[in-house]
Amino acid sequence: MTRRSFWAWGLESDEPSDDERARAAANLSKRYGVTLEPPPAPTVASLDLRPPRITAPAALATLCSTDAHDRASHTYGKGYQDGVRAFRGDFPNPPDVVASPANEADVVALLEWCDAAGAAVVPYGGGSSVVGGVEAPRNAERVVSLDLGKLDRVLEVDTASRAARIQAGVLGPALEDQLRPHGLTLRHFPQSFEYSSLGGWIVTRSGGHYATNHTHIDDFVESLRMVTPTGVWESRRLPGSGAGPSPDRMVIGSEGILGVVTEAWMRLQARPRFRASAGVLFAAFAGAAEAARRVVQAKLWPANCRVLDPVEAGAAAGLSGTQALLILGFESAEIAQGPFIAEAVRIARECGGVVSDDQVIVSGGGDEGVGRQGAVGEWRNSFVRAPYQRNLTLGLGMVGDTFETAITWDRWPEFDRAVRAAAMEAIQRVCGGGSLSCRFTHVYTDGPAPYYTFSALGKRGAELEMWAEIKAAAADALMAAGGTITHHHAVGRDHRRWYDQQRPPLFAEALRAARRAVDPNGIMNPGVLIDP
Amino acid sequence: MTRRSFWAWGLESDEPSDDERARAAANLSKRYGVTLEPPPAPTVASLDLRPPRITAPAALATLCSTDAHDRASHTYGKGYQDGVRAFRGDFPNPPDVVASPANEADVVALLEWCDAAGAAVVPYGGGSSVVGGVEAPRNAERVVSLDLGKLDRVLEVDTASRAARIQAGVLGPALEDQLRPHGLTLRHFPQSFEYSSLGGWIVTRSGGHYATNHTHIDDFVESLRMVTPTGVWESRRLPGSGAGPSPDRMVIGSEGILGVVTEAWMRLQARPRFRASAGVLFAAFAGAAEAARRVVQAKLWPANCRVLDPVEAGAAAGLSGTQALLILGFESAEIAQGPFIAEAVRIARECGGVVSDDQVIVSGGGDEGVGRQGAVGEWRNSFVRAPYQRNLTLGLGMVGDTFETAITWDRWPEFDRAVRAAAMEAIQRVCGGGSLSCRFTHVYTDGPAPYYTFSALGKRGAELEMWAEIKAAAADALMAAGGTITHHHAVGRDHRRWYDQQRPPLFAEALRAARRAVDPNGIMNPGVLIDP
Repeated sequence: MTRRSFWAWGLESDEPSDDERARAAANLSKRYGVTLEPPPAPTVASLDLRPPRITAPAALATLCSTDAHDRASHTYGKGYQDGVRAFRGDFPNPPDVVASPANEADVVALLEWCDAAGAAVVPYGGGSSVVGGVEAPRNAERVVSLDLGKLDRVLEVDTASRAARIQAGVLGPALEDQLRPHGLTLRHFPQSFEYSSLGGWIVTRSGGHYATNHTHIDDFVESLRMVTPTGVWESRRLPGSGAGPSPDRMVIGSEGILGVVTEAWMRLQARPRFRASAGVLFAAFAGAAEAARRVVQAKLWPANCRVLDPVEAGAAAGLSGTQALLILGFESAEIAQGPFIAEAVRIARECGGVVSDDQVIVSGGGDEGVGRQGAVGEWRNSFVRAPYQRNLTLGLGMVGDTFETAITWDRWPEFDRAVRAAAMEAIQRVCGGGSLSCRFTHVYTDGPAPYYTFSALGKRGAELEMWAEIKAAAADALMAAGGTITHHHAVGRDHRRWYDQQRPPLFAEALRAARRAVDPNGIMNPGVLIDP
Repeated sequence: MTRRSFWAWGLESDEPSDDERARAAANLSKRYGVTLEPPPAPTVASLDLRPPRITAPAALATLCSTDAHDRASHTYGKGYQDGVRAFRGDFPNPPDVVASPANEADVVALLEWCDAAGAAVVPYGGGSSVVGGVEAPRNAERVVSLDLGKLDRVLEVDTASRAARIQAGVLGPALEDQLRPHGLTLRHFPQSFEYSSLGGWIVTRSGGHYATNHTHIDDFVESLRMVTPTGVWESRRLPGSGAGPSPDRMVIGSEGILGVVTEAWMRLQARPRFRASAGVLFAAFAGAAEAARRVVQAKLWPANCRVLDPVEAGAAAGLSGTQALLILGFESAEIAQGPFIAEAVRIARECGGVVSDDQVIVSGGGDEGVGRQGAVGEWRNSFVRAPYQRNLTLGLGMVGDTFETAITWDRWPEFDRAVRAAAMEAIQRVCGGGSLSCRFTHVYTDGPAPYYTFSALGKRGAELEMWAEIKAAAADALMAAGGTITHHHAVGRDHRRWYDQQRPPLFAEALRAARRAVDPNGIMNPGVLIDP
């Protein structure tokens, strides 16, 4: 099996060839009217990593690696700036040791060692953080990256309750492979699906497959187990409880600052057999957004209820670029979805949407509905393949990223105007122009989760500064307009500046105190989320 | 306006007359083959309350009362043991002062005074706690009951997002009265609806109207504002967020130990216009439970999906006492509910349920659906009237209570056997016999929330000890079998023994530390949930 690439999304075998990168550069050269030439891709041999500042004790030596590839591939997540730095071979702050526990006892032993040795511990699941969540703290004297990849098993399946006990290090595909024989699925497909882990989803409050109703991983956690520097924290397996504040909800979103989630009982779904879908066209974003609001407030709970602005609809659905698109999708393991999509389409048409009856697709009931064929499957595949696209253009000076948030419906139109204006002003000022688009990834009864994408040609060598300026302008604007700094990408190190404005100051005090109670020496992912 | 009764559920005008109590005693005498005579009802004048041990400063004097009726009616909640003690005139530990802030600034000033004076603060909403949640700590030297009743306004309504900013002291009926002109409702109808408050619902994780999907108050909190001894904690108004652990989820269920919730933005519903309902008969509880499981796992999300065992079905629905009943109800403001109930009935029949087509009632669309007529309205009215029934039998030696929990489906049948066996053994041993029944109040994809009711004739004067023995046997059994000590009644003081076993010990440490961060002197409801 080929190793993970230390700079590209995916495996080393996914790294693009020089020819592929040259073709991508030629395409971009044509689009921007410039001449871009791809620099050579970095190699592990070319890296000059700081020597490890800590040595594992003999008893843990077999779990620990100081190999250059291991350290380099655990230095960064997969955000824009991570790709730029990794491709440049810029690795000034790698972890000293990469530890790979094979079971929970190993995790306990490793935390004991780190606590005694004063080493910061950075839990590492699939390594797909886009917010600096798996990066070593700059001011730490010793850092161990704790890779949970070997904790990758489904341990128990309860088909009556549709739940399973699952180790936290399992990545998306291996998880689904183990659930499939039981006819079950977690049905949690973030864009990072291939290289993100159950534990990572839990501690970052990952947003999942469903556009409405239960979609955040928060809702699917039935109980969990976490190793902290002072012992194991395990909650009782319950479908619901009113006994005090939820212990799980203190761990969910904690981004590794309290401990290492080792396993969880997760609520599952039966694999869908019935589907219905429709793409509804609108003259403008506003009508499509209104339709989405009314569909979710009617509590029809579609699995898919995405709104694409004209730019995204043009790029993703081959439309003219002047119409907005509402994608509606329903699915069920038990029930034909015709009546549900009919109501949703009725509402969408009332809001000015256009779709012909024969474009409302209702399928399933037999085995043909089980697979990934059709529009939903295509969308999912292209969605999951998207991160590979950036591999082709690294080092060419492209500046592009996504930022995502949530806002209540009453403030949405003005929010969008303010955020777009601020982001476009920055893109124009910094890069002399570029593209900006928006879609809703999730909709709630009280508001949408807008997801913005921007892309521009920057200056090779100055990309990080250019990116940071645009990112800051966009983040400042969405905070000022009342949004959240992140709907499902997490806080990490990169969102700290805005998160510090967002969370109630007294909550930060409470969380800091809670953390000290379980991690008195502040070794767990220090600097992420809050300072210890 | 008449005052709240200091011993009965409701107002003084709701206190039963001597004649009414005599008739109730005669009925019970007949049922149990004994002679029961009702003792005289207590009066405020007959109470001999400990003199107040603290005096409010002049600036706060107008907000504070030491009146005997005020202190007596703030001494207890409305649990079984509260009724017995209040009716006996047994008030050894009343609050010293009852404070009634008119606004948030008053709350801040009162907490400052209490913090400086070393007085414990017991937040008091509607006073309907059944777990000792509003009772003064026994070991406190000074206690102020903080009655939020004057914070009873809806401050802002956002119809686009279906949300409102609401003061925490508002009771159910006044809240709904203020939302009705906007066509909106919180649709949260705990049995305590008339005398419980928004803030109380939030800090006790109240279970609401809906049997499936979003029903806990947790899901309806969009943001909240809390006054703590060290300042105000306010979260941002957001439909969803992935920015760190949810600040709101630390407050939700905190039972007053962190501070006083003063207001919240709440997610609302449009008032339903379409309804569908059916009562499906089953030969045994197991079939009805299986039908409920399959309906909720099919994600049909009925508003009502209650399962009554044969005893409850006999008492509540006039059935023979040999059949179990599944009550299905659907409702919507936007969409006719025929297709939904049809699917649910189909599933119920597959599980052996019997209901004729003409007993599946689908209504609404016009104004006739707006009101409270029909089975749902009747059920709701009798449900809300139920607490008044106990007023009639206080002082007669009846021992009876409810206990509620949640458990995953795989463990449910064995769980029920174990809990019933332990509870019946205790009822038999302590009272020589009595009744025990069960219904599901809520169902989740991964398990039901069973709600048990027991009733027996005890010995007048020894009721509290008899009750405590049965309660402990039942609680021990449900904890041993893997349940939660409470699904929606909260922890308070009465469930501490079992909650201390249930919550992860490290979570208790974290919560205690968080509390110290915002309440360093431990004045907020000490002894409830955790020790400071």
